[in-house]
Formats: sequence, structure tokens, C-alpha cells
Amino acid sequence: MTQGHPDVTATHDLDSPSCKAVSSMLSRIGDKWTVLVVELLSDGPMRFTELMRAIGGISQKMLTTTLRGLERDGFVRRTVTPTIPPRVDYELTELGRELQVPVRALGTWARENMARVEAARDAYDAANSGT
Amino acid sequence: MTQGHPDVTATHDLDSPSCKAVSSMLSRIGDKWTVLVVELLSDGPMRFTELMRAIGGISQKMLTTTLRGLERDGFVRRTVTPTIPPRVDYELTELGRELQVPVRALGTWARENMARVEAARDAYDAANSGT
Repeated sequence: MTQGHPDVTATHDLDSPSCKAVSSMLSRIGDKWTVLVVELLSDGPMRFTELMRAIGGISQKMLTTTLRGLERDGFVRRTVTPTIPPRVDYELTELGRELQVPVRALGTWARENMARVEAARDAYDAANSGT
Repeated sequence: MTQGHPDVTATHDLDSPSCKAVSSMLSRIGDKWTVLVVELLSDGPMRFTELMRAIGGISQKMLTTTLRGLERDGFVRRTVTPTIPPRVDYELTELGRELQVPVRALGTWARENMARVEAARDAYDAANSGT
């Protein structure tokens, strides 16, 4: 391999499928509703209406979109029981449970360091309030 | 649609400051541009124009917003050198470097499991293509 002049773009390969995949997954994981749904389902399967009740402030349409995204990505399994009316349950798949490990590590870090972030925000706002 | 039961919400404590803090941090971390900027800065300080060049497709306004958010949260330090024209450098703070640990763990998980997510998406799209 010849070493040319440092090409930052090539080094970080921001357009690589791998980097795009990570970006896309972080966007999914970073979505507020997604995090809440995955956390709720960690206790076991829940019905659509139970999720609606448990998450204050989510619209039916937004919950449907969130669950469909999670199902499409393989993190959540949707089971329809053909009763009248049909019963629809959602549960984490094996992949969804595995995903929880790094997500929880990040959540733990966030909780442990939130005070430092808030202190930084206060300092920033104080320094920029008069300008 | 039944009305919400406060006990369910309280059990999961979705409105607690801690949960909101984690949500807000995940939203920040989940932002595509934020992840790219933090990754780029992991090699050392960079100037605004270098970041612009390294990240294809980001507007000047979006990069400014992203950097301001990271600075306000205490993850990035902005240094102005009063030359003509002024030189502006950005670098990770200690907090920013610590944040990289769980973010990279998540990134590693995402890379290692992207094939499973893509397989799930293909299966989902195939099953839902005719409906």
C-alpha cells in the first residue's frame, strides 16, 4: 500500500455501506419512541393498546410507524391471533434482545453523565446569554 | 381506544427526568451528523472547513447547528485563534472522548449485526410486497 497525502474522506469512508449501515441503525436506535417501545417490550409481549396506554403522548399513527420499522428491521415480532376482534401482540425477537445490551450500556452512560451534560449546557447558556 | 392508566406510565417512569435525559441524549447521539463529527474528531482537532470537506453532503448551516449542539452539551470544545481571518478549531472534550466508548460499542454491534437486519428487511419487504 502506498501512503499518499492524508485524504480525510477516504480514511473515514463516510460513504461506505458499513458506515451508512451504522448511521441508519443509530438513527433508528436514537429515535425516542423506538427506545421507549424496546424498553417496554423488554418485560414481555404487549398488545398495541397496552403500548399506546403505557407511552403517554404517542399517536396511533406514530406507534404504528415505530412498530412497523422495528418489525421490518427484525427487532420486533408481530403476532396476530384471529379472534374477533383480532388480537395483535408485539414482542422482542432474539435480535431485539441482543440489541438491548449496547443500547442499555449507552443508556447507563447517559444516566451516569447527565449531570455533566447539564452543567455544560448551563455554562454554555450563561456564556452565550448576553451576546 | 381506552384512556391511559397513570400506573402503567409510572411503572416505566417514562416521564422521569432520568428517562427524558436518556431520550434526549440518544436523540443527540442518534443524529447522523453528530455521529460523523464525533468520529472525525476522534483523530484530533479539526477546523470548520476541514469538517465541511470531510463530510460530504452537509450544509454549512447544518454543520454549524451540529457543532453548536455538541459544544453546548460539553462534548466538543471550540477554540478561536484571533488571526485574520480568525481560525476556528473543534476538538473533543474529555466528556466527548468518554462518550465514544459506549457509542463505539453500539457501532460495533451495528456493524456486526447489519447483515441480520438487512436479511430481516428483505424478508419483511418480500412478505409485504404483494399486499
